[in-house]
Amino acid sequence: MSVKDQLMTEVAEPLNSSGNKVTIVGIGQVGMACAFSILTQSVSSEVVLVDVMEDKLRGEMLDLQHGTAFMKNARIDASTDYSITAGSRLCVVTAGVRQRIGESRLDLVQRNTDIFKGIIPKLVEYSPNTVLLIVSNPVDILTYVAWKLSGLPKNRVIGSGTNLDSSRFRFLMSQRLGVAPTSCHGWIIGEHGDSSVPVWSGVNIAGVRLREINPSVGLPNDNENWIELHKKVVESAYEVIQLKGYTSWAIGLSVASLASALLRNTHNVHAVSTLVTGEHGIDKEVFLSLPCVLGATGVSHIVRQILTEDETKQLQKSAELMNEIQCGLKY
Amino acid sequence: MSVKDQLMTEVAEPLNSSGNKVTIVGIGQVGMACAFSILTQSVSSEVVLVDVMEDKLRGEMLDLQHGTAFMKNARIDASTDYSITAGSRLCVVTAGVRQRIGESRLDLVQRNTDIFKGIIPKLVEYSPNTVLLIVSNPVDILTYVAWKLSGLPKNRVIGSGTNLDSSRFRFLMSQRLGVAPTSCHGWIIGEHGDSSVPVWSGVNIAGVRLREINPSVGLPNDNENWIELHKKVVESAYEVIQLKGYTSWAIGLSVASLASALLRNTHNVHAVSTLVTGEHGIDKEVFLSLPCVLGATGVSHIVRQILTEDETKQLQKSAELMNEIQCGLKY
Amino acid sequence: MSVKDQLMTEVAEPLNSSGNKVTIVGIGQVGMACAFSILTQSVSSEVVLVDVMEDKLRGEMLDLQHGTAFMKNARIDASTDYSITAGSRLCVVTAGVRQRIGESRLDLVQRNTDIFKGIIPKLVEYSPNTVLLIVSNPVDILTYVAWKLSGLPKNRVIGSGTNLDSSRFRFLMSQRLGVAPTSCHGWIIGEHGDSSVPVWSGVNIAGVRLREINPSVGLPNDNENWIELHKKVVESAYEVIQLKGYTSWAIGLSVASLASALLRNTHNVHAVSTLVTGEHGIDKEVFLSLPCVLGATGVSHIVRQILTEDETKQLQKSAELMNEIQCGLKY
Amino acid sequence: MSVKDQLMTEVAEPLNSSGNKVTIVGIGQVGMACAFSILTQSVSSEVVLVDVMEDKLRGEMLDLQHGTAFMKNARIDASTDYSITAGSRLCVVTAGVRQRIGESRLDLVQRNTDIFKGIIPKLVEYSPNTVLLIVSNPVDILTYVAWKLSGLPKNRVIGSGTNLDSSRFRFLMSQRLGVAPTSCHGWIIGEHGDSSVPVWSGVNIAGVRLREINPSVGLPNDNENWIELHKKVVESAYEVIQLKGYTSWAIGLSVASLASALLRNTHNVHAVSTLVTGEHGIDKEVFLSLPCVLGATGVSHIVRQILTEDETKQLQKSAELMNEIQCGLKY
Repeated sequence: MSVKDQLMTEVAEPLNSSGNKVTIVGIGQVGMACAFSILTQSVSSEVVLVDVMEDKLRGEMLDLQHGTAFMKNARIDASTDYSITAGSRLCVVTAGVRQRIGESRLDLVQRNTDIFKGIIPKLVEYSPNTVLLIVSNPVDILTYVAWKLSGLPKNRVIGSGTNLDSSRFRFLMSQRLGVAPTSCHGWIIGEHGDSSVPVWSGVNIAGVRLREINPSVGLPNDNENWIELHKKVVESAYEVIQLKGYTSWAIGLSVASLASALLRNTHNVHAVSTLVTGEHGIDKEVFLSLPCVLGATGVSHIVRQILTEDETKQLQKSAELMNEIQCGLKY
Repeated sequence: MSVKDQLMTEVAEPLNSSGNKVTIVGIGQVGMACAFSILTQSVSSEVVLVDVMEDKLRGEMLDLQHGTAFMKNARIDASTDYSITAGSRLCVVTAGVRQRIGESRLDLVQRNTDIFKGIIPKLVEYSPNTVLLIVSNPVDILTYVAWKLSGLPKNRVIGSGTNLDSSRFRFLMSQRLGVAPTSCHGWIIGEHGDSSVPVWSGVNIAGVRLREINPSVGLPNDNENWIELHKKVVESAYEVIQLKGYTSWAIGLSVASLASALLRNTHNVHAVSTLVTGEHGIDKEVFLSLPCVLGATGVSHIVRQILTEDETKQLQKSAELMNEIQCGLKY
Repeated sequence: MSVKDQLMTEVAEPLNSSGNKVTIVGIGQVGMACAFSILTQSVSSEVVLVDVMEDKLRGEMLDLQHGTAFMKNARIDASTDYSITAGSRLCVVTAGVRQRIGESRLDLVQRNTDIFKGIIPKLVEYSPNTVLLIVSNPVDILTYVAWKLSGLPKNRVIGSGTNLDSSRFRFLMSQRLGVAPTSCHGWIIGEHGDSSVPVWSGVNIAGVRLREINPSVGLPNDNENWIELHKKVVESAYEVIQLKGYTSWAIGLSVASLASALLRNTHNVHAVSTLVTGEHGIDKEVFLSLPCVLGATGVSHIVRQILTEDETKQLQKSAELMNEIQCGLKY
Repeated sequence: MSVKDQLMTEVAEPLNSSGNKVTIVGIGQVGMACAFSILTQSVSSEVVLVDVMEDKLRGEMLDLQHGTAFMKNARIDASTDYSITAGSRLCVVTAGVRQRIGESRLDLVQRNTDIFKGIIPKLVEYSPNTVLLIVSNPVDILTYVAWKLSGLPKNRVIGSGTNLDSSRFRFLMSQRLGVAPTSCHGWIIGEHGDSSVPVWSGVNIAGVRLREINPSVGLPNDNENWIELHKKVVESAYEVIQLKGYTSWAIGLSVASLASALLRNTHNVHAVSTLVTGEHGIDKEVFLSLPCVLGATGVSHIVRQILTEDETKQLQKSAELMNEIQCGLKY
């Protein structure tokens, strides 16, 4: 009889079900930062990694497993085979390729679409009740692609969108004002990245809008140059990539915050990429970030912010451009 | 149109499912300490309170709800109607009456059995896949009663047992040695309370058994009087009750630690009350605490400790006495 | 040689300094809920309880200590002698008597002032660098009294104030809107309790003010009766006391959130009672709740909300009444 | 007047003191995993990064800062100038170079010693009361070097040592037995890496030693090949490095667990590298890992494990070899 059999009497077969299983597809710097944020913050006790790079996959799995004694005994698995993802409540997709020099945006999206064709249907096959959270860039279009490929209802396909941009904005605001980021309120919406839209009207501390104090906050004529905060947000990704080669920690934490809202069913409001047809006069079938209520069902509600004409136009313009690209995609 | 309807577009109906719902039956000091420990330590994001005292129930629910902004937006509900417990992954039962002066133990158990008849079947009806965690005293017999009433497999009916006694032992050990309780290892098994059994042979720090240093540790002839630690553990409940009127915090924390192992499916080993027929030569159908591996299935394994003849006899004696009482019960 | 001496070689004497010591004076339901919230949420790893009731004090200390293995090995001490509080970074005062039937408010405050005379100077003597956080009611006047008795700079004497009222408001708002409390933004300021002031102008979700959607929100003529939310906040304490006999959990959590901001030096904004002379046209030396930036120094900044004339008058009226009582106090 | 000055009244100047400041020197994969583990697990609310690579340093700082809203508003700073580290309670050193092909161990240590000469004295200058935690490899000799360079008492200079090796061992044990790593007890001591020593005698579950079940556990003649677990531990670092290029997550988590024990003053027992002169018959002045009690003072006690003659010899041999190298070092 083995040591194990002598040591213990089996009463019942152990179950694999923690009820909070999270799959992460793509184990680059972003995927691993998502996994590590989710594990260290105890958002889930069961994380599965999937990638095509077998060696690196095993290396990352082992490295996490060696630390499980310090992560409340979370379970970590990894495989190139999607059957391991079965029963996930949340699938985070960070896989994808980057833009080649000279490559058009459509070509980039087409290449990632082709990659998604090998990922999304398998995820849905093994976890038909899952919520999909897309992190790969360009996130808004790829969330649309994932939605199309998945056949899932719109509420269950979400892009990480401008949750990160908003977090960057709040940090920069906190540095100006000497107030904690979570007490600095401001929303960046629309397309993740260069075309994102800061909703200056709502920027506030304790309900006091900065525009009540100085109506030109966020406008070109503001002598305190608050508009610089949004510029810095847009430049952030580029700056960090230039300095350290990639971004990882902040996007990992941003994704973990969304995962927490989804798994714990909290109904927190986060700016995430969602199907916005019908919102703010957008008539195209596109995904853009708006403040959304997140819970076990995915997106349950979209908050209708009161935007200026200019802000609305920016959103609509993004929608047009994205729709054009989407129309050129081949599935 | 209401403010809500103007403020938000509904995308999908919110779900009630957090996947980690915990019901707590009985909202005395113990039940509330369990609820509060589970909520503040983020063990669950969805707690339901059940009791027959409608006013107090509503008061406790409101008091918790008023603090949800400080508990990661956990959901708290309460009702006298068990339908609210539907879909619980774990049901913690703290309800029950205390011994009257002059009352026999059998009479006490019978009264609590009658109370359990109004609780256990309803819990199982609304949550057929639940694990039952019994905290009411005398916990070992009442766990047996709950098992009988529930019709559940033995692995899914657990008593909080000597997890608390073991924690008290480790604290007292930590005070003697100046070492953190979680680095002091010692197990109290058997019947929760006066007849509990300290397994002195296994008491260790970093794998060094105290008995390797001094073979008389835990024996009557020990000049350092280590046996006093177990005496103090046994007296603890009486002492705390005498001093403050009841025990609450430590049992609440003990239960939360078990709930975490069960919900997160960690396979941690805890001393809990489980069906011990066949263990340590016990041939009766009784529940006693032994170190158990806990996960989503409840108890998956019992650790077979190597006991002295004396320790084994104490367990068997407890089993005999409990069996006698159990035979006198009317369902 | 003792087991301990044989087991371990001493390298250096252990220190008592965690750098985050918190003293709690008064171990009624409120004081204990504060202690338990601070410990279970790991806000501090070193909590000291002080009270005059020796038995209950020892009972509560033991009950907490028995659970330290489940609270990351936090250290808990208790004594009737204030020397045990030496070196506290934060002292939370929950001691005090309740209003007798027919007793005037001045008489109540005078009685609590007499109690504070036996507490505050001793706390400051043993922890000259501490921040004082007053929870005893009537909290605003007693925070003033504590400030006077302590001789500490105004930034280091704080009342728990309307942090709890605001949390209750946000919970009620969350129930109406189906949005998590932490995503519901609203501030209750002024005097804790009946005379508190809801700042309706700032109430918002994702920066969208409810008054932008319906300008009558919070006004008597609102057909959705949002004003009811504030009424319920005011009634909350009475309702909970009537139902369960006292309030505990929510105030405990509220205090733990303040303690976290103070000890972790986060610069979060919380509505707490602070010296408001010069704010909103108040010329009296009184303490009222306003949104404050909290850090290691205590209150570093007060946020100047933009109030209506009516709201300002309510604050000023509270200030007048409180000043009158304060003038009648004998030290 | 600026928006900030109109928005807020300053009551007192904010302080920089959280009382739990941690400096991390070296921002490679290991240093950043340490920082991220410490921040996401709320071990500290104030982390400073130091390195000579200005660009990468700024990139890592920004990337962490962008996520502070998701890390309880922790403060993150970075500089190439050590003045920023002033007042740290803990300094974690991960800086250093790797072995060149064909380079002798002495040459490697000499090169890292030269690097430490530019680090350690500055850390001690700005934080004379700090604890130093050395992570750079070869960790045992470099901890000795850091001790010599620092002039600090031995208790305040610690190497991360075999805390990680032990964690890997416990994970492998958990996989064999189906029991959570934190319920699997086993200690790897001695030199971190190839020459580490597994103390098989103490390996246990719930106090049951595996050797009580099968006396050959860990011996060459064991038919279940338990010795393989230690072999795998030794190979772990190589395997992970081969698979993913470096190790990061597990060492980061291991360091965070030590940081927690030190900052929270918990007196937990961890296997860390400490001055072992006089222990287990070692007469050289060297650092090796033994189970140590950790608190605010650093190492307060060393646990004297009961080792076999063979285990003792292995330790002594490591000590001899390390001493030889140390004697060849030039400061």
